[in-house]
Amino acid sequence: MRIYGKNCIREAIRSNRKIEEIFVEEIETKKSSNFIQMIKDKKIKCTILPKKEMDKKFPSNHQGYGAFVEDYKYKDLDVLFKKKEGRKIVLILDGIEDPHNFGAMIRSVDAFSIDGIIIPKNRSVSLNETVAHVSTGAIEYVNIIQVNNLRQSIETLKENGFWIVGTDASATLEAKDIDKNLNIAVIIGSEGFGISKILKDNSDYMIKIPMTGHVNSLNASVSCGIILALLK
Amino acid sequence: MRIYGKNCIREAIRSNRKIEEIFVEEIETKKSSNFIQMIKDKKIKCTILPKKEMDKKFPSNHQGYGAFVEDYKYKDLDVLFKKKEGRKIVLILDGIEDPHNFGAMIRSVDAFSIDGIIIPKNRSVSLNETVAHVSTGAIEYVNIIQVNNLRQSIETLKENGFWIVGTDASATLEAKDIDKNLNIAVIIGSEGFGISKILKDNSDYMIKIPMTGHVNSLNASVSCGIILALLK
Repeated sequence: MRIYGKNCIREAIRSNRKIEEIFVEEIETKKSSNFIQMIKDKKIKCTILPKKEMDKKFPSNHQGYGAFVEDYKYKDLDVLFKKKEGRKIVLILDGIEDPHNFGAMIRSVDAFSIDGIIIPKNRSVSLNETVAHVSTGAIEYVNIIQVNNLRQSIETLKENGFWIVGTDASATLEAKDIDKNLNIAVIIGSEGFGISKILKDNSDYMIKIPMTGHVNSLNASVSCGIILALLK
Repeated sequence: MRIYGKNCIREAIRSNRKIEEIFVEEIETKKSSNFIQMIKDKKIKCTILPKKEMDKKFPSNHQGYGAFVEDYKYKDLDVLFKKKEGRKIVLILDGIEDPHNFGAMIRSVDAFSIDGIIIPKNRSVSLNETVAHVSTGAIEYVNIIQVNNLRQSIETLKENGFWIVGTDASATLEAKDIDKNLNIAVIIGSEGFGISKILKDNSDYMIKIPMTGHVNSLNASVSCGIILALLK
């Protein structure tokens, strides 16, 4: 698949993703000689292009770097149950469709060492080039698990010792009320509709972010970041 | 100025912004009769348009609603010193240029009842239609203060009893270490460059968000949301 953006490509190299070819804009050979040297050291095929050619080949926010790499792959739910030590936290995304929100969430999940993200196959964002770009390369380090049915996955998580934490503005508990020793799977819903009734009904706890303003709606990736920061 | 999006227009009406004319897409007259009734009750000039006309007049994500309204106005720094009771928290944005991040931050500032946002005149995002849209109308309720010189504003804030809290990945303190009784102005820097040296040098405290991942960079509006949530 195609990826672009300096951070995204740097992390693809660092994490040893299979890279077919990297394209770099001419001016970068002067501006970022270290970066070019890293590409050479790794013996990755690299083509220098004038800006006009880069703009044709990659989206306009390519920042001088583009590449064709092995696709990002989804993991299986099992990956979450392999870690034997330490507390586990998983993020479940119920109906997030915006690639910018998803990319920002991947950054937060990496930053807080969350164990993985579960997304459903239908009505959900997928691992595309925009998500990779917005994640600034964090996509390389995050377990992203795609499942057919979120409710079934919640059952499997429960059987494996996870407590399910739903989020809803009408909840009475807050993140600080959740025992920091529990393995948890926290569900974030879509901006428009929140989390679905069936997932609410299957949650062990419901928590909210206390708000005191007029509009009282947070961007989905912002509320996700706040909840992960508070649950850690 | 032109604004668009259902939430944005709803809040413009609710907050009694002067509205020249509202344009609504035909299909909305069936889907959202309460909303149309509210427009009628307020005796605002309203024109129903077919989708094609709406798409010509407003950006594609207009959600069936557009309007021409009185411009959003910047406030003076003085507005922050009028409130006599309770603790005050102000957000200073140093070099945020992305309207999506700014709009998401306005939502967080409203949700956490933060007293205002200070932005510099130069090299900064301004109050445009994209920001209004992304703020989902929260822009109506937030004091947004535009200043010529952030360093001078920091001096004025200090003279008026505010403590200045900078943010930087290399800081040793965290948000939880800041006394919750202090009036504070917290500075968030740009994604690429963080906060400028002169503002760091003028900060009373520097705080970080503890991160343990690989890439360890949060989206600017996400880190802003986390810091505001933790400082409250």
